[in-house]
Amino acid sequence: MTAAAAPSLDDVRAAAERIAGSAIRTPLVRLGLDGAPAEIYLKLECLQPIGSFKIRGAASAMSLAGDALRAGVYTASAGNMAQGVAWEARRRSVPCTVVVPDTAPQTKLAAIERLGAQIVERSFDEWWDVIATHRFEALSDRVFVHPVSDPAVMAGNGTIGLEIVEDLPEVDAVVVPYGGGGLSTGIASAVKALRPQAKVFASESETSAPFAAALAAGLPVEAPYTPSFVDGIGSRRVLDEMWPVVSSLLDGSLVASLKDTAGAVALTAERNRVIAEGAAGTAVAAALSGQAGTGTVVCVVSGGNIDASKLSTILAGGVP
Amino acid sequence: MTAAAAPSLDDVRAAAERIAGSAIRTPLVRLGLDGAPAEIYLKLECLQPIGSFKIRGAASAMSLAGDALRAGVYTASAGNMAQGVAWEARRRSVPCTVVVPDTAPQTKLAAIERLGAQIVERSFDEWWDVIATHRFEALSDRVFVHPVSDPAVMAGNGTIGLEIVEDLPEVDAVVVPYGGGGLSTGIASAVKALRPQAKVFASESETSAPFAAALAAGLPVEAPYTPSFVDGIGSRRVLDEMWPVVSSLLDGSLVASLKDTAGAVALTAERNRVIAEGAAGTAVAAALSGQAGTGTVVCVVSGGNIDASKLSTILAGGVP
Repeated sequence: MTAAAAPSLDDVRAAAERIAGSAIRTPLVRLGLDGAPAEIYLKLECLQPIGSFKIRGAASAMSLAGDALRAGVYTASAGNMAQGVAWEARRRSVPCTVVVPDTAPQTKLAAIERLGAQIVERSFDEWWDVIATHRFEALSDRVFVHPVSDPAVMAGNGTIGLEIVEDLPEVDAVVVPYGGGGLSTGIASAVKALRPQAKVFASESETSAPFAAALAAGLPVEAPYTPSFVDGIGSRRVLDEMWPVVSSLLDGSLVASLKDTAGAVALTAERNRVIAEGAAGTAVAAALSGQAGTGTVVCVVSGGNIDASKLSTILAGGVP
Repeated sequence: MTAAAAPSLDDVRAAAERIAGSAIRTPLVRLGLDGAPAEIYLKLECLQPIGSFKIRGAASAMSLAGDALRAGVYTASAGNMAQGVAWEARRRSVPCTVVVPDTAPQTKLAAIERLGAQIVERSFDEWWDVIATHRFEALSDRVFVHPVSDPAVMAGNGTIGLEIVEDLPEVDAVVVPYGGGGLSTGIASAVKALRPQAKVFASESETSAPFAAALAAGLPVEAPYTPSFVDGIGSRRVLDEMWPVVSSLLDGSLVASLKDTAGAVALTAERNRVIAEGAAGTAVAAALSGQAGTGTVVCVVSGGNIDASKLSTILAGGVP
């Protein structure tokens, strides 16, 4: 295993130029709530074409691949990254295959197929093996985009940090939902290069907080995992290759309860008219708890892909 | 009655400078739907601080008032304009009073009071009289912001058109929800000054289509009005003072059914993760019907203020 490296500011700036035709420059808006413990802003990645930040990393990596891309592209993902790679592949008219675990929900598969990608189902262990080894033999003639640790993907994610500091130079803290660590690494690299005194926190759900567990243990450990509506982040363990970079770059993990996360999703809908998925809700909930400090805090609303029925439950004040 | 005049491009450009600290420059995003009859874009005014475009007009008018503003401000509105004026008044620390009809829903009043404005309730006729005469005796020492026909309000609305043409110079058509006519007049003025061949359509609901009725009759006439979830637009009659300008500037009225409007709100939530109110849904429904043409069509998502329970019904495929 080679440890992942944080992208440099130059890497991120180069990625920003590469992705300009694919990703939009998302707005940074004030959370419409008086009496919050901090001045809270929302970075609205849910407005990207596929409803999540993943388009940035996918476009960044694929635009680097050059002619090799003509043979096609593949990724291993059951969720947002699959849509990011499929969307960019369609835009570039290259074939795309997505390796998914046979546990993937039908709605996610439908969204991937709608974008024209082929789906290959494997057992969870075989699927995880693709992520761990960065390789799927049957597609090895194609360009592989790793959902988390590809350097170009992390540089693409870093463009979010670049935009945050451009729009809000006085930012004190950024809260980033922690999935595989690629989003928080990219953002922290850019933010800390431009504003070293700013803190960058990971946010996790009480149902799955492997980064908090790793920080407590001093190394990646198995952590409890309970399925919940917070399905865009959460795993059983921090990826070994990500641990050195995330443990040195990030200022801690803020863990949100399911109830507070649902409340944050409802608040964001009511006050800012945007739909945040559960993963994004953990960042807003963490900022509302005051744990990210009392200054100017940006929550990265990483995506908005949530089932309508779960959203309805949340809007009615419940927890799906 | 003095007929309202369309703002000039210079008026709109001056308003853009005045409102820069209050309104945000909202993003223009592609509607995430394949196979639509046109290339449809959404101008996301629902992301403004108060959840609607009204902040632009309120800020434009109040920043013009100068020292007179220290005595305070008032408006006559039961809805979004009240919030726009109240929000800007709070930002400027000046007293604000809103005259509302005694039929105004409690949720709207709560939102106005949350922004620190005083509320004065009057009968529907007395309230309408304030709008028709531009005056409420008890507050005549204050600055009055007319919700529709104030020239500075229309110039502020026009900044939306300015941004649309800047972001999408090839725009073929813009669809604007028709309430009092101030939004469509402002936007059409700017769009047609910069791109004369572009069409600007009003959108209305089948439950209340006074502009379509006036166009059919050749002058403002009484039109049927049925209360519905499309409550941000709709009245019984086009304002006489607005008729000359709207009848000459706009290219027609596209009337959407309630069912199509609910479907458009659901689609916008599902595919673009933004919450559009019913008024905004009429514009999206009109574009989806093909009536705005097959080219590049921008729908103005004028606001996102919709009750959670109605939104839930729509997300479940129903019509509230």
